[in-house]
Amino acid sequence: MFAGVLRSSGTYRHMELFDAAEKFEVFGCFSLTELSHGSNTRAIRTTAKYDPKTEMFYLHTPDYEALKCWSGNMGKAATHAIVFAQLYTPDGKCHGLHSFVVPIRDPTDLTPYPGLLIGDMGKKLGQNGLANGFIAFNNYGIPRDYLLNRTGDVTPDGKYVSSFKDPNKRLGASLGALSGGRVGITTMGSSFLRLSVPIAIRYSAFRKQFGPTPDEEIPVIEYQLQQWRLLPLLSATFALTIFSYTFFLDFIEFHVAMVLGEKSDHQADVGREIHAISSSSKPISSWTARDAIQQCREACGGHGYLAVSRLGELRDDNDPNCTYEGDNNVLLQQTSNYLLGLLTDKKLKGEPISSPLGSVDLLNDYERILHGRFIPSGKAVLDFNDAISAYQWLACYLLVESDKKLSKEMTSQDTFTARNNSQVFYCRSLSIVYMEGLIIQRFAKFLEESPDESIHSVLSKLCSLYSLWCLEKHTNTLFEGGYFTSGDSSKLLKASILHFCSILKDEAIGLCDVLAPPDHILQSAIGSSDGQVYKHLYQAMLIHPEALERPSYWQELVDRPEVGLYRDKICSPPSPKSKL
Amino acid sequence: MFAGVLRSSGTYRHMELFDAAEKFEVFGCFSLTELSHGSNTRAIRTTAKYDPKTEMFYLHTPDYEALKCWSGNMGKAATHAIVFAQLYTPDGKCHGLHSFVVPIRDPTDLTPYPGLLIGDMGKKLGQNGLANGFIAFNNYGIPRDYLLNRTGDVTPDGKYVSSFKDPNKRLGASLGALSGGRVGITTMGSSFLRLSVPIAIRYSAFRKQFGPTPDEEIPVIEYQLQQWRLLPLLSATFALTIFSYTFFLDFIEFHVAMVLGEKSDHQADVGREIHAISSSSKPISSWTARDAIQQCREACGGHGYLAVSRLGELRDDNDPNCTYEGDNNVLLQQTSNYLLGLLTDKKLKGEPISSPLGSVDLLNDYERILHGRFIPSGKAVLDFNDAISAYQWLACYLLVESDKKLSKEMTSQDTFTARNNSQVFYCRSLSIVYMEGLIIQRFAKFLEESPDESIHSVLSKLCSLYSLWCLEKHTNTLFEGGYFTSGDSSKLLKASILHFCSILKDEAIGLCDVLAPPDHILQSAIGSSDGQVYKHLYQAMLIHPEALERPSYWQELVDRPEVGLYRDKICSPPSPKSKL
Repeated sequence: MFAGVLRSSGTYRHMELFDAAEKFEVFGCFSLTELSHGSNTRAIRTTAKYDPKTEMFYLHTPDYEALKCWSGNMGKAATHAIVFAQLYTPDGKCHGLHSFVVPIRDPTDLTPYPGLLIGDMGKKLGQNGLANGFIAFNNYGIPRDYLLNRTGDVTPDGKYVSSFKDPNKRLGASLGALSGGRVGITTMGSSFLRLSVPIAIRYSAFRKQFGPTPDEEIPVIEYQLQQWRLLPLLSATFALTIFSYTFFLDFIEFHVAMVLGEKSDHQADVGREIHAISSSSKPISSWTARDAIQQCREACGGHGYLAVSRLGELRDDNDPNCTYEGDNNVLLQQTSNYLLGLLTDKKLKGEPISSPLGSVDLLNDYERILHGRFIPSGKAVLDFNDAISAYQWLACYLLVESDKKLSKEMTSQDTFTARNNSQVFYCRSLSIVYMEGLIIQRFAKFLEESPDESIHSVLSKLCSLYSLWCLEKHTNTLFEGGYFTSGDSSKLLKASILHFCSILKDEAIGLCDVLAPPDHILQSAIGSSDGQVYKHLYQAMLIHPEALERPSYWQELVDRPEVGLYRDKICSPPSPKSKL
Repeated sequence: MFAGVLRSSGTYRHMELFDAAEKFEVFGCFSLTELSHGSNTRAIRTTAKYDPKTEMFYLHTPDYEALKCWSGNMGKAATHAIVFAQLYTPDGKCHGLHSFVVPIRDPTDLTPYPGLLIGDMGKKLGQNGLANGFIAFNNYGIPRDYLLNRTGDVTPDGKYVSSFKDPNKRLGASLGALSGGRVGITTMGSSFLRLSVPIAIRYSAFRKQFGPTPDEEIPVIEYQLQQWRLLPLLSATFALTIFSYTFFLDFIEFHVAMVLGEKSDHQADVGREIHAISSSSKPISSWTARDAIQQCREACGGHGYLAVSRLGELRDDNDPNCTYEGDNNVLLQQTSNYLLGLLTDKKLKGEPISSPLGSVDLLNDYERILHGRFIPSGKAVLDFNDAISAYQWLACYLLVESDKKLSKEMTSQDTFTARNNSQVFYCRSLSIVYMEGLIIQRFAKFLEESPDESIHSVLSKLCSLYSLWCLEKHTNTLFEGGYFTSGDSSKLLKASILHFCSILKDEAIGLCDVLAPPDHILQSAIGSSDGQVYKHLYQAMLIHPEALERPSYWQELVDRPEVGLYRDKICSPPSPKSKL
């Protein structure tokens, strides 16, 4: 983040520091969030006031609510920070949020510079290998040219100059450089799936419990219930791995063009589409991983609750993906705004909807699609093609419903309130079905283009399982809007999901071996590729340092302290309220 | 557990030890689970062979897969364990699983006795204040009268005597004494809700972000999306608190009668019903808490990810509730088995269904209920009465559908397989709607009987929100089975949920103050009753020991190690497989 922003927001004068960062001669961090502001970046309160007498900016934290926090690496090691602050010129005018590169620790001994309060935020639920830090500035001076001046600058005598007339647009261009974060998190979600799902499936193939007779026990993966809990997650792992790979390539193409200075309308359209996709791919990917890891943990029973299963660490480390780089629920609004905007354009200007990556082209045809009905035509089992049709209908239905809802809300209140009141069950659902539909579409395309016939059959089953499993969660909408016209449709959908679970079961271990990293990287006592769950568990239990030790407090226990002796030390005196 | 089982499974000869345990003169633990067996208790492999020459039982662990594990307190401090083992008489006959009270550590210095391997299992995802232990027996001898002989005994010369002829029934009576665990976990789930939900709602009432104009920010609880994320959880907290309270009273009544020796048919019926209820109330309560804590964590954004929010600890500590005392998914089968059995009785014997606690009486009327249709009759908003009717229909519909599915499966395969293949979308869903319906029914009854008019209005809104929010997840089934006949029904349901979220918003803080414990017990930097989120966060960040310290490894960083220097220490040599 540090080097990337230096390059995208800085100019030639910052390239020396960029080189030093690349060589690890300085350690950088990125500091935008404040204690009281995250999503609403425009309301950031740290100030940077320019003084032409000294030709310096003075950074200042007005109060502890404006304390910068959550900056990764700032807590312990960073020597430099990219700090976002409101830029003030000597005339007292605020020019909005700008970024500055700020020396914060002496690189020779890592002590903070005077005028700064820097610290580590403390223990988090996970990711404790990363020292998230906080910083407060006490009129801390930095030279004028530490402003990252790609989009706006201040002359030595204190005049503000920018190629952007609208400060909002300038900020947008500056923050736009950060969209890669969401693309990266989309990939991280698929990585967490590739770690957690193989653990649970390998465990379930080894673990036996109950059986048709008292003397015979069968592996738990043989149970329909366990298959239904885990095999859709296996298919989701493939779906998201394929999606995040293809989406990453799109992003790289866009990014290279941007770095090369491409400024065409096409490039701007790609940027908008990537923004819309990443604003829902990041939520879907992180939530899918969140739910999958939890399901895997439970599917491994108590043994999944041991730290050596690694499922706890995976859960804790994936968790922030749901909220950083934009809270998932807030981000989804970016996607629906984009889609609703396209619909408005189409209706107002009569222009066909067409996007560079093709993710929204189906909306062009929404009137026809909305007349579609589910016709199983005697099929015994549905497949991904049925899901693709259903998702096209869902996206169009929710787009039109959201548009209607928004228009209705707009008649009685301001845009801000109207938008807020159109999220639940409308815009939020729209963004989700758009994204799921796109993931399925890309899976199907991957399948179509795959040159290897030998893997076509199994990938096709995985694609069907993933798409039908996702679709099932929208059955209510399919009924509500009349796409499903009979209860048999929903029964067929459910039966199809169980069918694909059942026929993928015997291939599950092979598929996990394809996905999982080598055992020494997976590091799970219950998820090794050799399937020796109990052996590894037993070893892990015996070797940890205190396994066979008498507790340090044994004497206290043997002396049997009087019950209640420590009560005063544990509890504060009861307040009147505690009677409740 | 230790004292309880001593009392329920032991006889007069064990009462001295019971008294010692009550006085904390000995520390007990309970040991049933083995490394390779949890749910399937009948397959436990630890043996207890009686030798009439020494008049002793010899406990033995045949191999590490039969290692006893997960025994709470065994890891560090327990001096005695209740151990379940297969009892063998000298004639070589196995009489099935029996429990023994076994001295495992010297109470004077807490060292383990010879012949035992005892250890602590190591770090878990949570609940690390409890030392879960393992134990292996090497032909470890204990006197004959250490057998807990309430339901079966061995004479000094080695004859087995029992009042139960069927060993399965004897085991059932012995394990039946443990059902209190699930009642307890149901209550624990509601406790976790009372801790987590107030944290997130208080935070959301304080945290401001965005607003109708650039200069005005509003608390995030004012957003429809945040209300929809949190207020149903607030209503669930009330619903589950009320349910677990009333269910606990039922259980205590049953338990007292059992201890007093009540053996009537009525008592047996109550026992069966409590078993069926607890087998689904424990899953619903632990899952509701699981999802609520996660939602609360995300609703508090990054600050919820700090350990001082306490949401991580709550998540980790609630987590085992989903799998211990019976995995949730496996347990749900107990409930559906009970319901299907009642239906069969009714159909075969023509007997009306009637249960002591009345939880299943509605099934009596299932044919009439199944003809019901949703008729909103011009209502602008649904309430809990609509939900109760819908839940009655859902329970009957899924009962009949599950019965049909099971019968169909039985025509082509054995009962074991047929049952397994009827779980997903059928029996599992049946147990869930039965339980949710019961929780709502008890909430409505509580409301009806509440003498305090002043709280009636707000409780009634909470009851409506909870019941409609639960119901919404079953919309697909309502459509599938024809209870909902138009898309307008589902739209009305959703609008009603948002209506109750909106009208409960202003009362949310007051309701949280009713639920939450005092701040010094809640211990959350972002959830204090004074609402001073940033002040407490800032304090918490500054006071933790390493907040302002230079990292211990600063010299290494300053010396800038060559990139790749430590690679050999981190990675094993790559295997051929790692190329994947």
